[in-house]
Amino acid sequence: MAANCGAVLHGPYDVRIEDILMPEIGGDEVLVKMDCVGICGSDVKLYTTGCCGLDVLTEPIVIGHEGAGVVVKTGSRVTSLVAGDRVSIEPTQPCRACEYCKLGRYNLCVAPRYCSSMGVDGNLCRYYKHVADFCHKMPEDLSMEEGAAVQPLAIAMHACNRAGIRLGQRVLILGAGPIGVLCAMTAKAMGASQILMTDVVQSRLDTAHELCGAGLCTMLVKRDSPEQEMVDNIQGLLGQPDVTIDACAYASAQRVAMMVTKTAGVVLVVGIGDSKVEVPLTQALLREVDVRGSYRIVNTYPSALAAVDSGAINLKKFITHHFPLQRTKEALELAKSGDAMKIIIHLDWS
Amino acid sequence: MAANCGAVLHGPYDVRIEDILMPEIGGDEVLVKMDCVGICGSDVKLYTTGCCGLDVLTEPIVIGHEGAGVVVKTGSRVTSLVAGDRVSIEPTQPCRACEYCKLGRYNLCVAPRYCSSMGVDGNLCRYYKHVADFCHKMPEDLSMEEGAAVQPLAIAMHACNRAGIRLGQRVLILGAGPIGVLCAMTAKAMGASQILMTDVVQSRLDTAHELCGAGLCTMLVKRDSPEQEMVDNIQGLLGQPDVTIDACAYASAQRVAMMVTKTAGVVLVVGIGDSKVEVPLTQALLREVDVRGSYRIVNTYPSALAAVDSGAINLKKFITHHFPLQRTKEALELAKSGDAMKIIIHLDWS
Amino acid sequence: MAANCGAVLHGPYDVRIEDILMPEIGGDEVLVKMDCVGICGSDVKLYTTGCCGLDVLTEPIVIGHEGAGVVVKTGSRVTSLVAGDRVSIEPTQPCRACEYCKLGRYNLCVAPRYCSSMGVDGNLCRYYKHVADFCHKMPEDLSMEEGAAVQPLAIAMHACNRAGIRLGQRVLILGAGPIGVLCAMTAKAMGASQILMTDVVQSRLDTAHELCGAGLCTMLVKRDSPEQEMVDNIQGLLGQPDVTIDACAYASAQRVAMMVTKTAGVVLVVGIGDSKVEVPLTQALLREVDVRGSYRIVNTYPSALAAVDSGAINLKKFITHHFPLQRTKEALELAKSGDAMKIIIHLDWS
Amino acid sequence: MAANCGAVLHGPYDVRIEDILMPEIGGDEVLVKMDCVGICGSDVKLYTTGCCGLDVLTEPIVIGHEGAGVVVKTGSRVTSLVAGDRVSIEPTQPCRACEYCKLGRYNLCVAPRYCSSMGVDGNLCRYYKHVADFCHKMPEDLSMEEGAAVQPLAIAMHACNRAGIRLGQRVLILGAGPIGVLCAMTAKAMGASQILMTDVVQSRLDTAHELCGAGLCTMLVKRDSPEQEMVDNIQGLLGQPDVTIDACAYASAQRVAMMVTKTAGVVLVVGIGDSKVEVPLTQALLREVDVRGSYRIVNTYPSALAAVDSGAINLKKFITHHFPLQRTKEALELAKSGDAMKIIIHLDWS
Repeated sequence: MAANCGAVLHGPYDVRIEDILMPEIGGDEVLVKMDCVGICGSDVKLYTTGCCGLDVLTEPIVIGHEGAGVVVKTGSRVTSLVAGDRVSIEPTQPCRACEYCKLGRYNLCVAPRYCSSMGVDGNLCRYYKHVADFCHKMPEDLSMEEGAAVQPLAIAMHACNRAGIRLGQRVLILGAGPIGVLCAMTAKAMGASQILMTDVVQSRLDTAHELCGAGLCTMLVKRDSPEQEMVDNIQGLLGQPDVTIDACAYASAQRVAMMVTKTAGVVLVVGIGDSKVEVPLTQALLREVDVRGSYRIVNTYPSALAAVDSGAINLKKFITHHFPLQRTKEALELAKSGDAMKIIIHLDWS
Repeated sequence: MAANCGAVLHGPYDVRIEDILMPEIGGDEVLVKMDCVGICGSDVKLYTTGCCGLDVLTEPIVIGHEGAGVVVKTGSRVTSLVAGDRVSIEPTQPCRACEYCKLGRYNLCVAPRYCSSMGVDGNLCRYYKHVADFCHKMPEDLSMEEGAAVQPLAIAMHACNRAGIRLGQRVLILGAGPIGVLCAMTAKAMGASQILMTDVVQSRLDTAHELCGAGLCTMLVKRDSPEQEMVDNIQGLLGQPDVTIDACAYASAQRVAMMVTKTAGVVLVVGIGDSKVEVPLTQALLREVDVRGSYRIVNTYPSALAAVDSGAINLKKFITHHFPLQRTKEALELAKSGDAMKIIIHLDWS
Repeated sequence: MAANCGAVLHGPYDVRIEDILMPEIGGDEVLVKMDCVGICGSDVKLYTTGCCGLDVLTEPIVIGHEGAGVVVKTGSRVTSLVAGDRVSIEPTQPCRACEYCKLGRYNLCVAPRYCSSMGVDGNLCRYYKHVADFCHKMPEDLSMEEGAAVQPLAIAMHACNRAGIRLGQRVLILGAGPIGVLCAMTAKAMGASQILMTDVVQSRLDTAHELCGAGLCTMLVKRDSPEQEMVDNIQGLLGQPDVTIDACAYASAQRVAMMVTKTAGVVLVVGIGDSKVEVPLTQALLREVDVRGSYRIVNTYPSALAAVDSGAINLKKFITHHFPLQRTKEALELAKSGDAMKIIIHLDWS
Repeated sequence: MAANCGAVLHGPYDVRIEDILMPEIGGDEVLVKMDCVGICGSDVKLYTTGCCGLDVLTEPIVIGHEGAGVVVKTGSRVTSLVAGDRVSIEPTQPCRACEYCKLGRYNLCVAPRYCSSMGVDGNLCRYYKHVADFCHKMPEDLSMEEGAAVQPLAIAMHACNRAGIRLGQRVLILGAGPIGVLCAMTAKAMGASQILMTDVVQSRLDTAHELCGAGLCTMLVKRDSPEQEMVDNIQGLLGQPDVTIDACAYASAQRVAMMVTKTAGVVLVVGIGDSKVEVPLTQALLREVDVRGSYRIVNTYPSALAAVDSGAINLKKFITHHFPLQRTKEALELAKSGDAMKIIIHLDWS
């Protein structure tokens, strides 16, 4: 086998395991021998369409942005890590100089170099280099798989931070995909006392229930149910939510969110919805329901690692499927089917 | 003349100056001899349609909610005011017991008793009673007219508070009606360094310019201009606004606001828009532009009075027209025409 | 037995179980047949010294402010409660008209009528009247004892709210008395990942450990230990705390808090300390460590009840001792000894 | 004259104008031909004692950190500036990788490289290099002197931001030195309606009055006045301040601040006080008066430049004295005397 190889996406449905260059690290960087990389919904979008959000595939790139591995080499100025350290990789390298970086909102960086986005290679490969300070040393008790899954957890935590979830609140989560489920776990860890999750697929709700445990209620909805009926059903089960998280980004979910959320509450949208939506915005704004979005990750890796380490959040059951690098295409097809919660590619799987 | 009389709205276009009961005050209330009452856009909506927002006229009510007068009698438990005090009347009497009142968001009170709304009489009458603690003693140098105009200023201040305007920011205000103009004055007093105001009527923009002075730019827009063109023109004049205040509540204004506002900024809607709007919400939320509404007034009367008293905000030129009570209908018709900034009804005009 | 009787404090160490008037309720009030009332540190201070904080006993008052009972009668305007409802009593009746009440900070009300304070009778009696909206209906599964203990929990929650505890943080709590222990439970429920508690008595730390479970570390300190040594020991066990809660209000604790707390962190003092303290304030402020106090309770009863109901916080083991009303003096003496966590007086104990 | 020279401090009272190396710029840096550099109180402390705060002079360094100049050369990766641009230099170069930098609090950076501090050279020299993104392009209408004075203004703005000054508030400022005066200007620009400033020297108060204009009251205090008397006098003139800024960092000022500030208000300390102070902390904390410090500058240069450009803040009169580089020692002696508001060293003064 060559010194380095990775999963390179050449176009829709055209992912190849290829030899790639062994990275040379700079003074602030580390070389990471990758161990586990998760498959995300945005990987699937890129795989099936060649586009994701504003991003369009114009040249082949290595995919993957939910990775963990072991540091094998450190740059000359790196003091925070040494070879042998196990790290969870926050998949961005922001510019650190734009106003958003300086304001502590580096997720909004104007030139972020984000893994497998806008021509920047991802980390689904054997060896990957990254700036040291975005490689977070993992607590001893965390497995490599968990280290990879911390990435979507950090997404969910940023969403919950933006939503301002507080102790004792009622939280509604629309959509039982991986991000929705991790938002539910996070909301519970932040002290939400009642959480209701909806989805159009019962099996997803069953999985969510299993993962989140007591304190989570679920409600099956139909895609074409009248919105007022959904609102009534939600309020019957949960009462009015203080916070509604739209984790599916359907226009109908956003409509329900604006109608059902309690006066003075928050509607938080995580994920990429339609470019235009028809919504009852006035009805939310007159009641001072704030409508917010959350984008990627900012400063939540440390708390995500701490929460998993303390046991406040349990990622073990969240990880449901495993593949070796060679079978990445198979993994992407399974992810596309929607039948898996979190698929991990193992780079070391012989 | 009878002991008490006021402007009673019986139905669309049917406003009558009638004798009404002289109020008897309770222990926490004061009797106010009204002096000045402003005419507001919502008065005009009620006058022309019999409805305003969720409010429907079902029985005749006294209109008016922008009032100032002189205390003539105080309830047995009132210690904050004495007869002779000049007061600006905050036109709500919240329940003080619901969760919103307890949280300090009494503008969202579930049972607010708000002047000239939901069957509650307003204060466009000779004598009016109100709870003492919502009658704000006016600084000596303020005129009665200014005391009345403090009400819409308090609305604008709540909007600017919700928008989180800070020193040095760029602020865009869509709509040069009275609330838009007062938002511009408030934004300037809060330290906004550049303010751009748009409207479809040039004369309103001219008036706004005269009232707000240096630091305000204006831009005439056409109702049917393509939104991207408006966005480009705004950015050419102002750059990207940190805060956009939609003070006209048109769907097209909300679309422009979501497109033009700077990443990490705020879109604030004040006023009542259409029940459903088609908007590019995703484009705002992915950039973590927060979308908020502001409703009525909460805790801004004291700062509004202080800002007028200190000279930070000048309301004198804002008040453009004057009528006696007997000519209230004429005043409402003028207000309806859109040619007046702020009309004041004088109760004492002999 | 007379229609009503209660524990009346006449002076230091002079508490008597006496007949008292049966209250007559107003339109917004309810009459509560008391069931459980907890004994608090401030009861002990009042009992032993006749003073507590700024409060001086000038005439006999009924003590008690941690109460729960059953509504037996409702005022004419009460709609939120009916006879038979089990309620946890938030022991204040704020004025609702001062600026603090309007701002949602009614704990700072200028005229609060707080149970067993400033001449206002408490609720350690058979029948007690209170405004309905400060009587919180208890979830079905909560016991009366828990309903009483919700009061100190609401104190702790307000402290933790003011401290701004967030998911994944390290929290240091100085003092393992009832409030310290409840702060630890609350911090954990809010997602703190590591909590260290200190005290000068090992048995208190053992109890704290038993109550808070995994995730709490404890450290025995000596009253005369050099402060730098305590700082070093704390940092050795916990690292630098993001938040330090001083729940003992000793000057030395405040000094340690200012030294040990992480840059950009928070020192939160709950409780009444010395009138003057010598502290290394500059060393905290230059690192932008904020120093805050928390006073009583504001808006935390609903979340406290929800958190106990959801199981996020378990009060059962927190309640350690039980007495009938007749043995109130004995209960106060036990509380004074410091050997009990939470003592409950049962009004119905025959 | 040599290619480069600057004011080098060798030890207490030993400042020399010496030849120094011409800097070589890196890819992200620019070379600035300095034009104006202000003298600050911390320069005076370093000049007179060889220490300032935690900083101790161990080897000769170039002093100066309030500088403005013209870019003469740009690094290969610099796109934000070109030669000829006039820039105001934010005198820090934070690490951009520590948790505080990532959180947007780079003023608390663990390794900040701050001008004339901890062995890092300042910019009181002919040529100086700095990272491009901390060189802020000046609006056309600002003079170089103003560009230099923006540095202490940015300090004051961070202090006022931390204090949370809002429209309509009452603000007390203790100390009429340059930072106190700039805090007063900033508070006014943020909408404070009443500002009271105290000092022990009448001439400083007179200058402050002249600079801040209407809306500022002043009060002469004696260093040994009883604190309660000062509190009473302040409340007589201003009422209770919502915010008190201690801009002199005397223990007695901190005591007065804690006593006089309104319940729920803020005490903000800017500057370096004694290592231990005896203060009535309990009296502030029980009233939920927050005690905060502010350290250096974070993200306030853009708003400072905007506020000067818009006219909200006028720095022209603030600049009172001028010297050429050769007479730096004379300038430091004048600054030490306390008789000057802001002294500017002109590098181009032939």
